[in-house]
Amino acid sequence: MKQLKIGIVGAGRIGNVHAQSITYAIPEASVVMVTDVIEENARKLAERFGIPKYSADYMDIIRDPEIDAVLVCSPTPTHADISIAAMKAGKHVFCEKPVHTSIEKILEVQKVAEETGRKLQIGFNRRFDHNHSQVQRLARDGRLGNVEIIKITSRDPEPPSPEYAASSGGLYIDMMIHDFDMAMFLAGSDVEEVYAMGTSLVDPRIGEAGDVDTAIVTLTFKNGALGVIDNSRRAAYGYDQRVEVFGSLGMAADENDGDSTVRLSTVDGVVSDKPQFFFLERYMASFTEEMRQFIHAVNTDGEVPVGIHAGLMSVVLAKAAKLSLDEHRPVKVSEIYGG
Amino acid sequence: MKQLKIGIVGAGRIGNVHAQSITYAIPEASVVMVTDVIEENARKLAERFGIPKYSADYMDIIRDPEIDAVLVCSPTPTHADISIAAMKAGKHVFCEKPVHTSIEKILEVQKVAEETGRKLQIGFNRRFDHNHSQVQRLARDGRLGNVEIIKITSRDPEPPSPEYAASSGGLYIDMMIHDFDMAMFLAGSDVEEVYAMGTSLVDPRIGEAGDVDTAIVTLTFKNGALGVIDNSRRAAYGYDQRVEVFGSLGMAADENDGDSTVRLSTVDGVVSDKPQFFFLERYMASFTEEMRQFIHAVNTDGEVPVGIHAGLMSVVLAKAAKLSLDEHRPVKVSEIYGG
Amino acid sequence: MKQLKIGIVGAGRIGNVHAQSITYAIPEASVVMVTDVIEENARKLAERFGIPKYSADYMDIIRDPEIDAVLVCSPTPTHADISIAAMKAGKHVFCEKPVHTSIEKILEVQKVAEETGRKLQIGFNRRFDHNHSQVQRLARDGRLGNVEIIKITSRDPEPPSPEYAASSGGLYIDMMIHDFDMAMFLAGSDVEEVYAMGTSLVDPRIGEAGDVDTAIVTLTFKNGALGVIDNSRRAAYGYDQRVEVFGSLGMAADENDGDSTVRLSTVDGVVSDKPQFFFLERYMASFTEEMRQFIHAVNTDGEVPVGIHAGLMSVVLAKAAKLSLDEHRPVKVSEIYGG
Amino acid sequence: MKQLKIGIVGAGRIGNVHAQSITYAIPEASVVMVTDVIEENARKLAERFGIPKYSADYMDIIRDPEIDAVLVCSPTPTHADISIAAMKAGKHVFCEKPVHTSIEKILEVQKVAEETGRKLQIGFNRRFDHNHSQVQRLARDGRLGNVEIIKITSRDPEPPSPEYAASSGGLYIDMMIHDFDMAMFLAGSDVEEVYAMGTSLVDPRIGEAGDVDTAIVTLTFKNGALGVIDNSRRAAYGYDQRVEVFGSLGMAADENDGDSTVRLSTVDGVVSDKPQFFFLERYMASFTEEMRQFIHAVNTDGEVPVGIHAGLMSVVLAKAAKLSLDEHRPVKVSEIYGG
Repeated sequence: MKQLKIGIVGAGRIGNVHAQSITYAIPEASVVMVTDVIEENARKLAERFGIPKYSADYMDIIRDPEIDAVLVCSPTPTHADISIAAMKAGKHVFCEKPVHTSIEKILEVQKVAEETGRKLQIGFNRRFDHNHSQVQRLARDGRLGNVEIIKITSRDPEPPSPEYAASSGGLYIDMMIHDFDMAMFLAGSDVEEVYAMGTSLVDPRIGEAGDVDTAIVTLTFKNGALGVIDNSRRAAYGYDQRVEVFGSLGMAADENDGDSTVRLSTVDGVVSDKPQFFFLERYMASFTEEMRQFIHAVNTDGEVPVGIHAGLMSVVLAKAAKLSLDEHRPVKVSEIYGG
Repeated sequence: MKQLKIGIVGAGRIGNVHAQSITYAIPEASVVMVTDVIEENARKLAERFGIPKYSADYMDIIRDPEIDAVLVCSPTPTHADISIAAMKAGKHVFCEKPVHTSIEKILEVQKVAEETGRKLQIGFNRRFDHNHSQVQRLARDGRLGNVEIIKITSRDPEPPSPEYAASSGGLYIDMMIHDFDMAMFLAGSDVEEVYAMGTSLVDPRIGEAGDVDTAIVTLTFKNGALGVIDNSRRAAYGYDQRVEVFGSLGMAADENDGDSTVRLSTVDGVVSDKPQFFFLERYMASFTEEMRQFIHAVNTDGEVPVGIHAGLMSVVLAKAAKLSLDEHRPVKVSEIYGG
Repeated sequence: MKQLKIGIVGAGRIGNVHAQSITYAIPEASVVMVTDVIEENARKLAERFGIPKYSADYMDIIRDPEIDAVLVCSPTPTHADISIAAMKAGKHVFCEKPVHTSIEKILEVQKVAEETGRKLQIGFNRRFDHNHSQVQRLARDGRLGNVEIIKITSRDPEPPSPEYAASSGGLYIDMMIHDFDMAMFLAGSDVEEVYAMGTSLVDPRIGEAGDVDTAIVTLTFKNGALGVIDNSRRAAYGYDQRVEVFGSLGMAADENDGDSTVRLSTVDGVVSDKPQFFFLERYMASFTEEMRQFIHAVNTDGEVPVGIHAGLMSVVLAKAAKLSLDEHRPVKVSEIYGG
Repeated sequence: MKQLKIGIVGAGRIGNVHAQSITYAIPEASVVMVTDVIEENARKLAERFGIPKYSADYMDIIRDPEIDAVLVCSPTPTHADISIAAMKAGKHVFCEKPVHTSIEKILEVQKVAEETGRKLQIGFNRRFDHNHSQVQRLARDGRLGNVEIIKITSRDPEPPSPEYAASSGGLYIDMMIHDFDMAMFLAGSDVEEVYAMGTSLVDPRIGEAGDVDTAIVTLTFKNGALGVIDNSRRAAYGYDQRVEVFGSLGMAADENDGDSTVRLSTVDGVVSDKPQFFFLERYMASFTEEMRQFIHAVNTDGEVPVGIHAGLMSVVLAKAAKLSLDEHRPVKVSEIYGG
């Protein structure tokens, strides 16, 4: 069995998640170097997972001939350039989302991928979730007939700080980007038009910072289906992650995962578990699965399950949503890209 | 459409239930007289449902040539004699359970039913419950394959007074009799052997009065299946009524009914409705349905859905269970009847 | 106890539903006359429920001094005029929805109600559903905190004929009107702005007839909350009726009602009941409850639970949605009424 | 952090399970040797998990001074002697269940554990299951009040071969032993008396081999609670693993785990996932957790969570159940041990 040699750029939370998956659950690969601009973070991650090399400079990974593939887990503004450098150096790339906030930059990444023929997978981990992927499978396999309505509920347990909200690019690109990708994944279609509503009900300071914390966006898909996504930055009961696909033959919908199936019946009612708290608990298995499939695609020279098109269109939709909110009108996707 | 003329003996809770079903939901019949040894109760029931005649003497019903059928809703010790008198007077009979606590007396009722050819239905209303009847239907129709295990959970929300417990004949005949009948209904088979456990955990005074308030009884059915019933006189969360049939091809099981399907998700968990409180809420529709089927059987000269055999065997099982508890050993049903 | 004397105008399906509720479940009232332009239908309904008088002319009800209240169950275009005539004749009115398709006409009805001081209730029965009303109660009582997002799913089991669709005024007023009212009921607020999407995916002939059969409408409530309604004319699995209210302290959501709680587990999966088929099964108890509350309000001179404001605003929202669809832009409610 | 050095005796399925947990999920320990009488199996396991040493002779582990703890995963008849040898050599022991089929032998193991002061944990992994452990926690913490009824459903997806059934010691010790331990775990009490029913409904050859494949056993706990366990060797819908604890303040019950929370609604009904197929899927996390707690207990010189008493009493109950079945009477636990 080929053992893929991997370098991780960025030793933050998501870098740790991927290192953990590879170290403990994917025998077909091993992490051989990690870098972080804060070298101490790289050192800690390396030590935690027994990774032989670490550094403060991601170019140490790019230049290392032993390394086959690079996981780009650094801050968003650096995703594109690091991905480009890695591919040009002959390495396959797994890039966290969003690829970039500039369409042009994403297109540049796409061009380099095409020119170098390197594998390039974008980190939309929710596609690999055991619940959502099963809904998609039923839709894809025709069990629901012609897909007519897509509904996605996605609510975080706790709002970010107003400072973070202000610097994040806003809810549509920071949070709903996952749901835009999920919507296209479930519908099996790109989107034609977007209409966005958004308001600040959770924390007025988020509104003052120019962002929204509560949002509903509707979608018209190219295949004729309609869709709706609702987001909130704060759900008192935990991380609310549900999708529903409705078609001519039926509906597939999932429920949140709790920590157990136990129901406690008392004089006060019948109590079940809340949704698991946040994405590290809820989506850990999906992070492992996306990494397993990336490594498998590289090792077998197969197709990556989430390509640059998904990275591009999710950002396009986020921009269309923002424009819709700002101009208070439905926005054609072609106004942003491809028109 | 023939309108069956009905007399009700006994103006207590169950007499009111049946009067209500007939008056409001069964156009094929009407109640024309009600009697109760406390004439005031008969008068009130008659007034409540617009019934033309009432009296303190059930013989007024027996002697009334207008009356086609009698509902025997009086206290248990009188069930058998009133049923016999009614059938001998040419009337069809719906008799509440238990028919009697003496096997001999039940056999006498059976004999009169056979001699007179009158319809005789026993009031095991739970067979008509929308949940339990659906489980039975799946079993009967072969959807579960060969039936192997029957499980019944049956718990009251609140214990009776120790005085009632003492005078009721005990848990096995007062409460579990419903479950004995349900077990045979679900298994599609009579019972070969019984083993009973019982203890007093809810109210020590019930134990002091010689009864149990918490019980598990296991059953070996004549068709080879095994069964288990558990009873408690007190469930903090309400009236717990669940059945499960397990067979070679699968399992059918029901859940309690709540007042709504609403789930409230908060920081404290996800809360659903408790089971509906007690039998009047939970089983009202089944009372109406058993009455509808009784009236239909009489009007069409069809077979009643619950005959005297069920009335007999349920009491036989209750007695076998009591003997098992007293002698601390498994008891063959044939030791009680039919040996 | 006062017995309210009721006349029913219109012996169609809904007239029968109300006659049944009153006859079998509401002792505080009785139906004394029914009329229908097809006299045979009036005669049949009268016979079915033992109603003494029937006629082809609704004016027979209006002129009958014995009658206290009129149920207006005739075709939509006649609702307003009959209601006005009845109130002017001193009678209380229960009027099916929509009151009228003209805002002016509804305002005329409102004016007459104010002038005559008669009770006037509009037939939004879903407010009385055991599930939806419990969600609303939790929201109203503050258990969800500040209401932020309202979601309503409402899908019919089978599409109407294209002819019906064409003549019905379209999906927004014929079908979604219930959901517009439910949205305001759940939010405890009127609506500020509407954005409508609609398409014909179920039956192309519905599209050819100028209507839609699949629709998503988003709402901005005056209290700041956001809302979304999705409708389909055809759900393969039955009548899909769910609501969800999300607030700062949590979420209340209901599920569909099935006929039983039974789950069948076999090699093919775990199968539960489909939603009850259509509105007569699913909402029968809510029809009875709305009638009970109307009769109670009249008998006690109390406030009716659903007044003309609901009748007005639901039609206003339907018109706003249609305008939004036609002009492909968000529409302020004030463009239709109250601007 | 101390890294515990572990040797595994027996390279079968459960040996692999533990090696996997330690290698991938428990950084506090590492497996340094594995043995199996079929050396090829030891070699394969060692290679699979990168274990440095393997051998055909378990004494190589016993004699290895580097090794701190031994996992006894060999066939049942060898559990006791290997455990004894390991403890006498100063090693801590994790021993799979059953410890032995002879009470005397188990007592000998207990004696050696006491004399040597070594940690000795028995492999009742289900105690660490996320569902069952949560039910136990609610009971233990008093949320259910006084425990009154314990119910355990435990059904395998497929029957073993008749040959296996014959050689396994029978259903009570081979299969129900887990449920006996779970019953005591949930009740927080040992058992006073057992009554066993058993029959062969799944495969007549199992009956011919002198074993049962369908069984119900009732329990009287020392603390006064009642209990019931049902077992079947074949559930068409998969591995059915549910527990319920009922007490004076309420009930805690769990449901099976499926692979997803998805519900598919079509004209045929609403379909959910079946239970996960068998113990490797269903209980993998519990195997990891029991190992984590064993290693933690050794590393911190703490108490093991499942001691030899559980190993002893589970076998005692299995023997009591077999005696009860053979003699067709309730059996006091003291007849087997401790009388």
